[in-house]
Amino acid sequence: MNKAGGKSFATVAVVARREREDVVETVLAVESILHGLGVEVLIEDATAGFLADNGHKRQILPRLELAAASDLVVVVGGDGSLLGVAREIAHKRVPVVGVNRGGLGFLAGVSPDQLESQLTAILDGGYGSEDHFLLAARVMREGEEVAISTALNDVVVHPGSMAHMMEFAMWVDGRYVYDQRSDGVIVASPTGSTAYSLSAGGPIMHPSLDAIVIVPMFPHTLTSRPLVVRGDANIRIKVLKARKTAARVSWDSQVSQELEVSDEVHISKFSTPLKLLYPTGYDFFESCRSKLDWASRLGNPSES
Amino acid sequence: MNKAGGKSFATVAVVARREREDVVETVLAVESILHGLGVEVLIEDATAGFLADNGHKRQILPRLELAAASDLVVVVGGDGSLLGVAREIAHKRVPVVGVNRGGLGFLAGVSPDQLESQLTAILDGGYGSEDHFLLAARVMREGEEVAISTALNDVVVHPGSMAHMMEFAMWVDGRYVYDQRSDGVIVASPTGSTAYSLSAGGPIMHPSLDAIVIVPMFPHTLTSRPLVVRGDANIRIKVLKARKTAARVSWDSQVSQELEVSDEVHISKFSTPLKLLYPTGYDFFESCRSKLDWASRLGNPSES
Amino acid sequence: MNKAGGKSFATVAVVARREREDVVETVLAVESILHGLGVEVLIEDATAGFLADNGHKRQILPRLELAAASDLVVVVGGDGSLLGVAREIAHKRVPVVGVNRGGLGFLAGVSPDQLESQLTAILDGGYGSEDHFLLAARVMREGEEVAISTALNDVVVHPGSMAHMMEFAMWVDGRYVYDQRSDGVIVASPTGSTAYSLSAGGPIMHPSLDAIVIVPMFPHTLTSRPLVVRGDANIRIKVLKARKTAARVSWDSQVSQELEVSDEVHISKFSTPLKLLYPTGYDFFESCRSKLDWASRLGNPSES
Amino acid sequence: MNKAGGKSFATVAVVARREREDVVETVLAVESILHGLGVEVLIEDATAGFLADNGHKRQILPRLELAAASDLVVVVGGDGSLLGVAREIAHKRVPVVGVNRGGLGFLAGVSPDQLESQLTAILDGGYGSEDHFLLAARVMREGEEVAISTALNDVVVHPGSMAHMMEFAMWVDGRYVYDQRSDGVIVASPTGSTAYSLSAGGPIMHPSLDAIVIVPMFPHTLTSRPLVVRGDANIRIKVLKARKTAARVSWDSQVSQELEVSDEVHISKFSTPLKLLYPTGYDFFESCRSKLDWASRLGNPSES
Repeated sequence: MNKAGGKSFATVAVVARREREDVVETVLAVESILHGLGVEVLIEDATAGFLADNGHKRQILPRLELAAASDLVVVVGGDGSLLGVAREIAHKRVPVVGVNRGGLGFLAGVSPDQLESQLTAILDGGYGSEDHFLLAARVMREGEEVAISTALNDVVVHPGSMAHMMEFAMWVDGRYVYDQRSDGVIVASPTGSTAYSLSAGGPIMHPSLDAIVIVPMFPHTLTSRPLVVRGDANIRIKVLKARKTAARVSWDSQVSQELEVSDEVHISKFSTPLKLLYPTGYDFFESCRSKLDWASRLGNPSES
Repeated sequence: MNKAGGKSFATVAVVARREREDVVETVLAVESILHGLGVEVLIEDATAGFLADNGHKRQILPRLELAAASDLVVVVGGDGSLLGVAREIAHKRVPVVGVNRGGLGFLAGVSPDQLESQLTAILDGGYGSEDHFLLAARVMREGEEVAISTALNDVVVHPGSMAHMMEFAMWVDGRYVYDQRSDGVIVASPTGSTAYSLSAGGPIMHPSLDAIVIVPMFPHTLTSRPLVVRGDANIRIKVLKARKTAARVSWDSQVSQELEVSDEVHISKFSTPLKLLYPTGYDFFESCRSKLDWASRLGNPSES
Repeated sequence: MNKAGGKSFATVAVVARREREDVVETVLAVESILHGLGVEVLIEDATAGFLADNGHKRQILPRLELAAASDLVVVVGGDGSLLGVAREIAHKRVPVVGVNRGGLGFLAGVSPDQLESQLTAILDGGYGSEDHFLLAARVMREGEEVAISTALNDVVVHPGSMAHMMEFAMWVDGRYVYDQRSDGVIVASPTGSTAYSLSAGGPIMHPSLDAIVIVPMFPHTLTSRPLVVRGDANIRIKVLKARKTAARVSWDSQVSQELEVSDEVHISKFSTPLKLLYPTGYDFFESCRSKLDWASRLGNPSES
Repeated sequence: MNKAGGKSFATVAVVARREREDVVETVLAVESILHGLGVEVLIEDATAGFLADNGHKRQILPRLELAAASDLVVVVGGDGSLLGVAREIAHKRVPVVGVNRGGLGFLAGVSPDQLESQLTAILDGGYGSEDHFLLAARVMREGEEVAISTALNDVVVHPGSMAHMMEFAMWVDGRYVYDQRSDGVIVASPTGSTAYSLSAGGPIMHPSLDAIVIVPMFPHTLTSRPLVVRGDANIRIKVLKARKTAARVSWDSQVSQELEVSDEVHISKFSTPLKLLYPTGYDFFESCRSKLDWASRLGNPSES
């Protein structure tokens, strides 16, 4: 946890992704608090589009310019919004803090009901931070790159349509792993290990772990199990056959691209991690206990 | 893969763990081949005890002195024998090669039916090698260490008797994880991830991964899932309650120690890894495919 | 197992589903064997369409009339073909025997390389038989039935597109079970319990069991587990929300229907089971052992 | 649900299993309420031993005579107590009602904080009831029966000591299923399917289902999966090999018996089910939702 002093965040950007009443309200509140703290405030253009005029003279910029011009980006919304923004601005190396509905996701953030105190503390240098690496996945067709994107949680290769199996071959660092007949495969970062991958039977990976997990989805071969490889592994997945429909690859379930037979998806760690700030006191295992309903304190004297 | 040239192994030790006909035969064959290759041969004292006289003048030493005095240790037997020897000599930093029944375990080794060619190649510098880290687990009782041992596969904390639940609390790097009511917990290295841990629902971890997996055994809380942490993590497990019988801790299911309520088991990576040599051509994923019956080549043109 | 004597099958129909060389060959062989046995042979019209003239004067009928007019239906092809034919003719109560590639599926059948001997034996009354119940699923929209079909293996409700969650509510016999956010749900018969449901974590159900299993697909709630209910249960699934795309219901992954929010799928046992004949000697557990690679005879004296 | 009128329970027995303060208090309260309702009250002798004198003249009987002499047995304690009593008196066919700490187990019962109203209602005929079948398991050694007991939840065959595998062969209705190398096997009734079996990966079986589930414990063969068979199945398990220690069989984790190599455990439904009464309004799925934390009402209009 960093406790950098000083006003390290002179310019702060605010982004939201969904025009929903509670989101809009929170954005306006964030804007006011930031102005009150005397920092320069930038608003993303799309976000500005659904904000009522409130007397503040707004500096409005497109998302990428915004990321380049600011010292901190505040994302208002749920994990989905954070994923969406992170994917686009990670390469700008600007730290990000989420303001979410307080505990719905595993990605820590400022809680709306403690907005002023937590934002003030963070601007004041009182925060923790954690680097979350992203996965970059390129789609190669006959030697040409036809699509590329990044994912904070996971890259999923799957049949376009459910309940239809597909077949693919996989290599890790150039070594052949298997041919698989299944509903697809999830390749997840530690961040993503508590999301979709977990529902599919993958393990929980500590955020500080430098590893990638590969989780088969309903594999025809019952002995196909989640496989954890090093964070610097290069994973290559080749579509062999997709029943009826073409296959697809999805990044964080937000962006997707159709795949043809013989297409390859190349997955590896993205060069720049997302630096996520959070209020001091956040603890990963506490988050697991509350979100996964793990027993804590069974009524025994387990203090230590 | 190393391909060190020269006679790097001037003195070679031979160890077996079980007095079984096929093992004894293989030990004698290894002894002859090594003599033929002109290296100095050391025989472990217990092993020597069940070998017939075959004209070779034998240098016999206790296991630990043997490890200190040799450049390579040949272990004849299955994975269990390798685990047993590795636990004891890992701190001597001498490389080890297994001679096993060819493919029963995940730990690569020389195959008895290619004994001469593979041993000769290895002595000649034609081998691969991989460092396998061990787990060290200490049992602490009221601040005193009452037992310590190492494990190549796993450390298991469990009720002494089956079908009886126990309760424990766990911390990773000083951070509280949970209280758990279960049949125990498996803490496995990457090497152990394809052994007992796999049967218990743990993921497969690539041997090169620097990570430890913690797998709950039949947890009362269904959301308790395998947890992968960094290889340098310090794991602390405290016995809260054991039903009827005391709890136990086991190292590689070979050594075990009774635990009392309030005892703690401290688990972390052992300082010295086991350097395991194997014939060139060994491939981890090939081993997975054959042992786990993973589909390979589904009849599609997946060459690449 | 029945060993009815006499010529109980005076009129035998032959159906294939896929115009593939080996299938066509087998159909012609079946036709010749049946003629040789002196029974009346009916050929399905679609099947006849891809058969070369071989001198036999053929009686050609549409599938449903064929089923009504014959004492036994021979289906040439894999499990998929059998599923397809079974769904359509089950209500005709005519027994069915499959001729498949010998052991690829769990549904027993005549093996192509023992075609003559096994078909002859069956026509002679030397066969086993098992009733397999089908599931009927109706789609209800605002009180109106908009689709209905049957499935031998499973009815799957899922988002139309993968990696997108959906939400549904479920009732069994009018009792509310849960609201679930997941990738969908599989409702499988005992026959289907060794197919898709098994990949999704469902239990194996013995074919003679009168039960239905409900298997959540990657449920958001980790404690959602396969649920086995009575065979006469009425299952009702209501689509609450489907992300981006509409949801779908699939019967045996062969027929499907789009679902709108608020649509309900009503699933229950179909009135008439499929009576499947198979060569004597077929054994369900033997089939499990060979297809699932279960250990048998571990080298111990386990004779009984 | 039955709503028998009249005073069908003229004589009511009270049993507790553990001398714990809250249990003793509840027993005394039950005694008073029953006296107040004018029924004849019998107290089990062991239970009477830890009750203070409270002025009631007590009729004290051993457990089995008690069951024979009463129209209803009230068991005060948790699921464990109910299991213990049920095992012993099921063959007496007397209905049982549990008084437990309100919701800790799946077995419905009277809640201590509604003791008077719920007991009164039940005595008045306002109750639901469900038959729970028990499993009877006999241990056969060289053709002789050396032990027999019943279980409401499960019969578990396991190595006496944990983290040691055993080997066994299994037959269902005389048909060979497999040889298995594992930590043992759980054979559970529908009642037991939500207990230990669930932690081991077994499905939830509706209480009304006439089926038995067989769940392998950490099987060496990853394709060994839970197997659901008919309730009238005869299951035979033969110990092939137990590592280091002898194997054991446990009934409801409460009674156990050592097993030697070649011993067989014969498991089948017990002749008499346990008739369990519960307050009206109990619902199995509601119990699943609350105990397993299943989502209910995701915030959508799923009323129906």
